[in-house]
Amino acid sequence: MPMTAAHTARLLITCADRPGIVQAVSSFLYHHGANIISLDQYATEEQGGTYFMRVEFALDRLQEVRDVLTRSFGDTVAAQYQMSWQLTLVGDIKKVGILVSKYDHALLELLWRWSRGLLPCEITQVVSNHEDLRDAVERFGVPYHVVKVTKENKVEAEAEIHELMAGNDVLVLARYMQILSSEFVEKWSYRVINIHHSFLPAFVGADPYRQAYEKGVKLIGATAHYVTADLDQGPIIEQAVERVSHRYTVEDLRELGEDVERNVLTRAVRWHLEDRVIVHDNKTIVFD
Amino acid sequence: MPMTAAHTARLLITCADRPGIVQAVSSFLYHHGANIISLDQYATEEQGGTYFMRVEFALDRLQEVRDVLTRSFGDTVAAQYQMSWQLTLVGDIKKVGILVSKYDHALLELLWRWSRGLLPCEITQVVSNHEDLRDAVERFGVPYHVVKVTKENKVEAEAEIHELMAGNDVLVLARYMQILSSEFVEKWSYRVINIHHSFLPAFVGADPYRQAYEKGVKLIGATAHYVTADLDQGPIIEQAVERVSHRYTVEDLRELGEDVERNVLTRAVRWHLEDRVIVHDNKTIVFD
Amino acid sequence: MPMTAAHTARLLITCADRPGIVQAVSSFLYHHGANIISLDQYATEEQGGTYFMRVEFALDRLQEVRDVLTRSFGDTVAAQYQMSWQLTLVGDIKKVGILVSKYDHALLELLWRWSRGLLPCEITQVVSNHEDLRDAVERFGVPYHVVKVTKENKVEAEAEIHELMAGNDVLVLARYMQILSSEFVEKWSYRVINIHHSFLPAFVGADPYRQAYEKGVKLIGATAHYVTADLDQGPIIEQAVERVSHRYTVEDLRELGEDVERNVLTRAVRWHLEDRVIVHDNKTIVFD
Amino acid sequence: MPMTAAHTARLLITCADRPGIVQAVSSFLYHHGANIISLDQYATEEQGGTYFMRVEFALDRLQEVRDVLTRSFGDTVAAQYQMSWQLTLVGDIKKVGILVSKYDHALLELLWRWSRGLLPCEITQVVSNHEDLRDAVERFGVPYHVVKVTKENKVEAEAEIHELMAGNDVLVLARYMQILSSEFVEKWSYRVINIHHSFLPAFVGADPYRQAYEKGVKLIGATAHYVTADLDQGPIIEQAVERVSHRYTVEDLRELGEDVERNVLTRAVRWHLEDRVIVHDNKTIVFD
Repeated sequence: MPMTAAHTARLLITCADRPGIVQAVSSFLYHHGANIISLDQYATEEQGGTYFMRVEFALDRLQEVRDVLTRSFGDTVAAQYQMSWQLTLVGDIKKVGILVSKYDHALLELLWRWSRGLLPCEITQVVSNHEDLRDAVERFGVPYHVVKVTKENKVEAEAEIHELMAGNDVLVLARYMQILSSEFVEKWSYRVINIHHSFLPAFVGADPYRQAYEKGVKLIGATAHYVTADLDQGPIIEQAVERVSHRYTVEDLRELGEDVERNVLTRAVRWHLEDRVIVHDNKTIVFD
Repeated sequence: MPMTAAHTARLLITCADRPGIVQAVSSFLYHHGANIISLDQYATEEQGGTYFMRVEFALDRLQEVRDVLTRSFGDTVAAQYQMSWQLTLVGDIKKVGILVSKYDHALLELLWRWSRGLLPCEITQVVSNHEDLRDAVERFGVPYHVVKVTKENKVEAEAEIHELMAGNDVLVLARYMQILSSEFVEKWSYRVINIHHSFLPAFVGADPYRQAYEKGVKLIGATAHYVTADLDQGPIIEQAVERVSHRYTVEDLRELGEDVERNVLTRAVRWHLEDRVIVHDNKTIVFD
Repeated sequence: MPMTAAHTARLLITCADRPGIVQAVSSFLYHHGANIISLDQYATEEQGGTYFMRVEFALDRLQEVRDVLTRSFGDTVAAQYQMSWQLTLVGDIKKVGILVSKYDHALLELLWRWSRGLLPCEITQVVSNHEDLRDAVERFGVPYHVVKVTKENKVEAEAEIHELMAGNDVLVLARYMQILSSEFVEKWSYRVINIHHSFLPAFVGADPYRQAYEKGVKLIGATAHYVTADLDQGPIIEQAVERVSHRYTVEDLRELGEDVERNVLTRAVRWHLEDRVIVHDNKTIVFD
Repeated sequence: MPMTAAHTARLLITCADRPGIVQAVSSFLYHHGANIISLDQYATEEQGGTYFMRVEFALDRLQEVRDVLTRSFGDTVAAQYQMSWQLTLVGDIKKVGILVSKYDHALLELLWRWSRGLLPCEITQVVSNHEDLRDAVERFGVPYHVVKVTKENKVEAEAEIHELMAGNDVLVLARYMQILSSEFVEKWSYRVINIHHSFLPAFVGADPYRQAYEKGVKLIGATAHYVTADLDQGPIIEQAVERVSHRYTVEDLRELGEDVERNVLTRAVRWHLEDRVIVHDNKTIVFD
């Protein structure tokens, strides 16, 4: 962490749009001695829509004044504009738990970037329903837990995962092939990030790469999204595609698809960790 | 047309894969004095699949010997390997009819490239169900016909379009907002090219750009395909996407979508005109 | 122009970074009754760098109060922070003059988008050193002037161009094959936008597409930039590339290169017209 | 290696273009009982240019007949057409040596793909001028050698590297920060692959990412090429770019640049291993 991270914080705001919000927030920060590093805003309509803001600011002795600052902002600006908001310190490193099955491509990309200091988080543990990736994970010094999931033990298994993962700020499904129950998802609302393949058109059912091959698609892609009870329909954080041709075998499609998946998931996780994503009405505002 | 086009031809072949096909085709051409300019092939499996080939070759006095050459190929190589095949002369300029409604972006891109000599075809006429684009089309010296289509006159209208378009090699739907009947489509089997917007995920129903906006997609795209009786499900010729963000309004999405559409449609039409596309099992082999 | 454009304005600001700028600007706007529509900012360093801001705001009766508003901002906030700044009204449509030689691709893309209402400007005239494109331009209702340029008459020719173009806000070189003198360029400082092809690596000298072909590059591209006295080295506004292969002839490279050029130039011009570009230290800040 | 790889071979051919080459090659293969799996060809001109071909074919008992086949092809077809050619068996796994300094991104991408079976080769050893990456390499079971290079010992050091690397088919410079002598390069002619960053425009001298930042480029990229005596000017195998903006710090540019580098280098190495690259006149023909 650079020196500066210790006294840098981020404010994420959602509220009804009306005049004076920038003025109110920036005055609050100015009068508390903060220096605005970056400020992004977006409104859904020119007038009368919903307003979103992300402010990154620096403030000396931030750790000491954080409680006062937080309470004060809540009592004044946030109250006045009826904001949904959160204040996070860059110095409070987020804890990330990863769920995985047998595919290692997305997992290893995350671990590798994290080990190089390119993902600002602590990866606390990896939970899988299989033993396969234990070595690959433990090599990075990250604990690996196996929780077998069957039809019969699903409730208990999820309870165990929930307990293991307690204390994490966000969960990443790096090709976790189990469907999480809506009860589980609700407990981790907008704090579970998933990656799945995407095609034009979309294919329902088993073996989508074979379907893509049979349909002769010219692009294959991946979508990272927050998990909601509505499977694979949660708010999209990031997407990308690559060109393919009729010469790609099913196996070639899968290999390229995995490359897209690891890149897309990495970007989505990073943006989440940097507090760049706000969810509103089941879609995302990404201040990248 | 360059000098060489007058004596250049293309052979498109589909047959069951077995040893000796390249040898048979290239020997045939060699013994008729042809020089192979390019040769592409593809087989669906390493053994026992379907085999596809595109050969472009040059031959002096091609116009004079075409009938002999064609008959001879059919009687020997094609018969031996039970090929589906076609032999086209680059000098036989393909005739293209365009169907359009009110949007002009895809139409104008085609007309503009054609007027610059970048689309190797003759655009014979444009048929629309609206008057709106008459000036834009006639400016290029291309005839413009209006055929109104209603629920009541659909059969007669399609008959009129079919008659107007008779003599064309291929029809291009440059944002033609009427659904062609399966009877019409069958008469023009794999000779009608359509363009439509594409999203990840796909959206069914009205106003897809609004749906894309509401879903917060990060990519929007377009797909060019051959029209079959199964609406928008025909063999895909080409696809492309562009990145978007939450800042794009519905109108912005539409504008960018139109840019993608005109590029994708242009490439698809050009590949068709250059005999680069073979359809097999409802997917395309594109020798680009 | 939408209703709202009439009372929308944009403020572009450059100054030394220090605390309170957002607060000062937003308070100024708030107290004048303005509603901030969008706000972007950027600082070259976390502390002690240069600060840039683009604010778009709506204000009733904007036309009537513009002089008061402008003077007041200059006397207070701008003076206090020693800002370079400009206030532009969206309702003040910018005037654009285009310079062109014989290639029409970039010119036609601009004219076509403008004619569809997708370029927020008035294209006042086209000046060329050749007659070739007169028809193509006059068809859009835009005056076309020919100013022949030779070694001998260069000073007079540029004087004539300068006079013809007087009153325009920005000049666009849509493949204008004459080098403008540094005297001319200085008069139009950061108000002349040029497009040129770009390759990896760069090629110096004549016929760069042939050089690209001979070098076997796998990407070709284009760069749009402000013209400065240092030829083709002015601040870059936008760049893009496309993939190519050894199969591309010199002519194919040129054709694809022209497609990239027209897209890149269009984006650059549009961003300039929307006051999204600030030049600082010979590089651009583009608030897109 | 799939069952089929054991009896699959590839023929790469370069010769003066004249009629009958495809016929001669395919007849030769047919009469030896081979089945053509894929065939690509390219000629620099329609007539009288240079001709290139890549054929992949399957043949039972390939190992046993390889010598006869090779001799026979050389004595007949190759002799008749004065071909430069090579016949490689897919079953003869190529040996790859990697040279690296301190950056690990390109190295790890290669090792990771190789460990997953996605790079068809044997990575025999890694040689570096630093100790830093020993653990990262040995973890994959690959030997790691350090050869310090100084101005004084350059000749001896290169001799040592040459000896260590003897027996490899190709060397990959995965960010090796030493310049190889032209003597060394000539011994490994077109068998050393390098990766370097690429910018539009190109920057000469130290710290190119800082120069790119100061110039405000909107794209950064990477180029993989064969190493020749003319530094960084050898035949280009592959290139790619990514978009950047003024918001990217020098560090951000470097990080993204490394991502592009590892992807581009991986593709280039893979194409080389699959015998897809022919060098001619200092440019590449890539049959991808």
